[in-house]
Amino acid sequence: MKVSSAQNLSIALIHYPVTNKNGDVITSAVTNLDLHDMARSARTYGVKAFYVVTPLEDQKALAAKLVDHWVSGGGARYNPKRCEALQLIHIRDNLEQVTADIEQANGQRPQTIVTCARPQRGSVSYGALREKLGDGAPALLLFGTAWGLAPECMSAADIILDPVRGIGPYNHLSVRSATAIILDRLCGEFN
Amino acid sequence: MKVSSAQNLSIALIHYPVTNKNGDVITSAVTNLDLHDMARSARTYGVKAFYVVTPLEDQKALAAKLVDHWVSGGGARYNPKRCEALQLIHIRDNLEQVTADIEQANGQRPQTIVTCARPQRGSVSYGALREKLGDGAPALLLFGTAWGLAPECMSAADIILDPVRGIGPYNHLSVRSATAIILDRLCGEFN
Repeated sequence: MKVSSAQNLSIALIHYPVTNKNGDVITSAVTNLDLHDMARSARTYGVKAFYVVTPLEDQKALAAKLVDHWVSGGGARYNPKRCEALQLIHIRDNLEQVTADIEQANGQRPQTIVTCARPQRGSVSYGALREKLGDGAPALLLFGTAWGLAPECMSAADIILDPVRGIGPYNHLSVRSATAIILDRLCGEFN
Repeated sequence: MKVSSAQNLSIALIHYPVTNKNGDVITSAVTNLDLHDMARSARTYGVKAFYVVTPLEDQKALAAKLVDHWVSGGGARYNPKRCEALQLIHIRDNLEQVTADIEQANGQRPQTIVTCARPQRGSVSYGALREKLGDGAPALLLFGTAWGLAPECMSAADIILDPVRGIGPYNHLSVRSATAIILDRLCGEFN
């Protein structure tokens, strides 16, 4: 039995800077179901806030419209449980805005944690991070869209988390699935 | 450290019979990203086959077109890793066809396992099912779309698995996220 301690964890979905298939740094498009699925996982595991990060005005407007429908529009009446999840979403231009938000709310900058499908030198285990999160200090877990977080984003993080491994070398989970699994490993309780 | 034993697990995504928000038994529509995400999770965790179950001819044709694009069409060249995942997909009319398929391949009918977001009497723990799967006998894990598997489908199953619980009563994960978490709990390895 794994027991969850009090945590102060937020998550962020990064649309820039991320890499494409060829390793170029790009800005990816916001995907409707990323927001729904990740918000529902965040709500399930007691995550404090879910930041959607993109510098593009049209993409911010699209994300805001989607969130508004489910949080205060017709969607909120149709499905209040979806409202409860999507109200965790905050849309921000960049990572600096996110960490500043968390610092303002907590009086302390969050430790940033990155994940990658590929093994990284110095990565920490799920058990070690889970224990660390139990101290209640603010922490921010970053997820990359497209082919993952850009190298500059990986190297600027405080902590690198072990990749999610299945039973072989295949490591191509969707960001929606990876988020669900990682939150369960860090915050879930089961026998 | 959780260590995976040899497993012989398949999964099925059921579009009929499932319930809607009001508890009526309905046939749900096939969702593109369910097939992608669940196929990628299945491939990650060594699942033998991913059955997409719907009785509707137009929905079967849609699913087949999608799979074909990624398994033998342009998608296979663009992203071979996606091909590797989606080739696990088999489209069937109903659950009887699925269990017959598995029986034909294994000389033994699979034990069927259902999941539900709500607690069910007599449900088994993840640890207990994981141990049972280690015997290598064929097993089939069913996931419901919409508001979940119809009562007739739940009561016909051999095994009911504990719900995925987060840190509170909120239990509204997407089927994509629930599949990822459940496969990780049953088949994943991590420290």
